[in-house]
Amino acid sequence: MSSSIFETLADQLARLPGIGRKTALRLAFGLVDDKELARDLSEALRRTWESVGECGICRNLTENPVCDICSDGSRTGGICVVQNPADLRSIEEAGLFRGRYFVLHGQLAPLDGIGPAELGVDKLRTMVEESDCEEVILALDSTADGDATSAFLARLLEGMDVSVSRLARGLPPGASVEFADTLTLTQAFEGRQKV
Amino acid sequence: MSSSIFETLADQLARLPGIGRKTALRLAFGLVDDKELARDLSEALRRTWESVGECGICRNLTENPVCDICSDGSRTGGICVVQNPADLRSIEEAGLFRGRYFVLHGQLAPLDGIGPAELGVDKLRTMVEESDCEEVILALDSTADGDATSAFLARLLEGMDVSVSRLARGLPPGASVEFADTLTLTQAFEGRQKV
Repeated sequence: MSSSIFETLADQLARLPGIGRKTALRLAFGLVDDKELARDLSEALRRTWESVGECGICRNLTENPVCDICSDGSRTGGICVVQNPADLRSIEEAGLFRGRYFVLHGQLAPLDGIGPAELGVDKLRTMVEESDCEEVILALDSTADGDATSAFLARLLEGMDVSVSRLARGLPPGASVEFADTLTLTQAFEGRQKV
Repeated sequence: MSSSIFETLADQLARLPGIGRKTALRLAFGLVDDKELARDLSEALRRTWESVGECGICRNLTENPVCDICSDGSRTGGICVVQNPADLRSIEEAGLFRGRYFVLHGQLAPLDGIGPAELGVDKLRTMVEESDCEEVILALDSTADGDATSAFLARLLEGMDVSVSRLARGLPPGASVEFADTLTLTQAFEGRQKV
């Protein structure tokens, strides 16, 4: 190629999450071939870094001081705590929750320097207090880090006048008992429900 | 999300080759999280669409009127015709060819409106004439479209004082005869060489 501009483009693309060197090159060739796309994408990126920030209440991504969900007076029924905006999006798309959200932007990871301050727990407490909500749903990953974060948040919210729950564990839809791993079966037994 | 800027970014990312909606969203979330990357990538894209064009001689990508390979007086030994800059890159990285290239930017596809003019065949003829080269190597894909394009180019170069070859066909390295498909075996037999 011997075009340093092209190499720079490929280098930047390779910094994207989950994009390796090979894929970055393929994308770069596509962008060189389609200059209109390169221009549109550059413009979309510029607007993103200039305009998109965190909601002052719930830390969701927004281009306004307060996000659309927090501004929507009809969204009541509790606060759903999620790890990141992608999780929020999945729950919104499932259409199964009509309350508000709080975005942690991470999981508790003291060794990586991610503590309560980084997760914005003061904002979460403020939101719980001021929204006068009845339930906080901890919708974190079903992993060791997710569980640790959930446990920490549950302790944090103790003493506040709110019920705290977390998502159910068990067999996912379509799973067979035969091939389920021990941890899944353990959680499915522990959480068994009367029929 | 309800951020139209974010949605626009995801839409543009989904236009990239091989990037579906799910991956576009993942990349968009990564870019919102890493504003420095968003800025760098936007800048790299802007420079790409502003500066990267085609070499006036060989149609390789370059930010100059003539690409580095064509400008390099030591690159002799024929012209290798490739379908796109990615193919050129693969051959360069293998380090097995020290001549010059000609980039078609596509394959012959009359139904899609890609004819001789779109492949720049006039430029190829000019390059062959002016470079006074001895051999043209057609390094196109081993597919029906690649073969059709090779056959067309071979006819085009007939009568010019140059030998025309194409890449060998046969078993790829590591392939077993047992599992090779009929077409591969046919080509391997047809191209068998004395030992």
